[in-house]
Amino acid sequence: MRYELYYWPQIQGRGEYVRLALEEAGASYLDVARRRGGDETLIALMESRRVRHPPFAPPFLKAGRLMIAQTANILQYLGPRHGLAPKNQPGALWVHQLQLTIADLVEEVHQTHHPIASALYYEDQRKEAKRYSREFWKRRPQKYLGYFERVIDRAGGAWLTGRRLSYADLSLFQVVEGLRYAFPNAMRRLESTIPHVIAVRDAVAARPRIAAYLASPRRIAFNEDGIFRRYNELDS
Amino acid sequence: MRYELYYWPQIQGRGEYVRLALEEAGASYLDVARRRGGDETLIALMESRRVRHPPFAPPFLKAGRLMIAQTANILQYLGPRHGLAPKNQPGALWVHQLQLTIADLVEEVHQTHHPIASALYYEDQRKEAKRYSREFWKRRPQKYLGYFERVIDRAGGAWLTGRRLSYADLSLFQVVEGLRYAFPNAMRRLESTIPHVIAVRDAVAARPRIAAYLASPRRIAFNEDGIFRRYNELDS
Repeated sequence: MRYELYYWPQIQGRGEYVRLALEEAGASYLDVARRRGGDETLIALMESRRVRHPPFAPPFLKAGRLMIAQTANILQYLGPRHGLAPKNQPGALWVHQLQLTIADLVEEVHQTHHPIASALYYEDQRKEAKRYSREFWKRRPQKYLGYFERVIDRAGGAWLTGRRLSYADLSLFQVVEGLRYAFPNAMRRLESTIPHVIAVRDAVAARPRIAAYLASPRRIAFNEDGIFRRYNELDS
Repeated sequence: MRYELYYWPQIQGRGEYVRLALEEAGASYLDVARRRGGDETLIALMESRRVRHPPFAPPFLKAGRLMIAQTANILQYLGPRHGLAPKNQPGALWVHQLQLTIADLVEEVHQTHHPIASALYYEDQRKEAKRYSREFWKRRPQKYLGYFERVIDRAGGAWLTGRRLSYADLSLFQVVEGLRYAFPNAMRRLESTIPHVIAVRDAVAARPRIAAYLASPRRIAFNEDGIFRRYNELDS
């Protein structure tokens, strides 16, 4: 089966967590909106009255007759199918729980540049963004990444869940990469306190399929339309 | 099996989505932190090094030897066990997708009074809260509840997924109640545009077990420490 991924073509965004899982799995997939006219296909499908389970927003994945939205939900569908999550329920729930916690962090990162409204430009909420970012870096990355640090430590293996890679590890890699891009100064200071998290990041980057993906044109570069944006004035 | 729910005892918060599911199911559960010394039990359990799958934050649920965190994750565990979600995968994924979208809305509502930092008092971010709330009510509840309105319409039944109640309906009830409490003026204007959503709210309120729960001391009243807070200055 060839999956169809629907996500905005200009950014990594939330679609990237799905792309990383599909790439690590070596799954066959079409990144629909990145093809000619693909963003119109995406919008038409979102608005179609014939879709039984319409998504609220991208990303969404077509898998045969299934259409699944919400990043973490897509990942929990893909995970056990491609060896990226346990098939047993306790294990699957745990990986999903970690993913939802990563999603919470990602949402907070988005607010560093859009604390007032997604619909407004960054320039129209700069003042609030500066205040939000200052507060954010007092405690939030420390709290989230410190939590994942403890999780890895307790799991007693190389990954969040121990001896086997899961889609949550791929997502943790993406968050570290994103924070490094958006907040190089603040992140540099934090990294020495989270060696296990950085080790997961390094181990993901070294996976052959991930390394090939990152070096390919399929990987969109970080940019200032995505979730992780580099605005020097927000980086302490 | 008697479940143990762990959540802050003073507020409905995110624990309320779990409480509603447990109540509708007629499940036996202990609301641990609301018992004498219970909040210390909650914190001790969160910080215990012996917990194999530590939660990042409440709510979390103990179900036998399982300990599950993240509201939507707890609900997807409970759902099929108690007739509150389909057992088949496409149906389960769809209900979970709806729940995750409700969770996104709830997060945005929380930011109406805490747009800068959860760790700061409302009074220290009032100005930003006013601006956030003004932008929020230009489009966000309309977009989210309008989406659920279409979902119910398309499902062709009384509920979000059609003919059977799911935990997502219970959560939608809670969101409508919360918005009515926090933003009575703005919500009054919106309600005429979302008749199906209001019908779901009414049908949930009329469920015998839910009605009994709402009338009981187990239901914590809305208050200004929770997610849905009434600050007149934020209600347009």
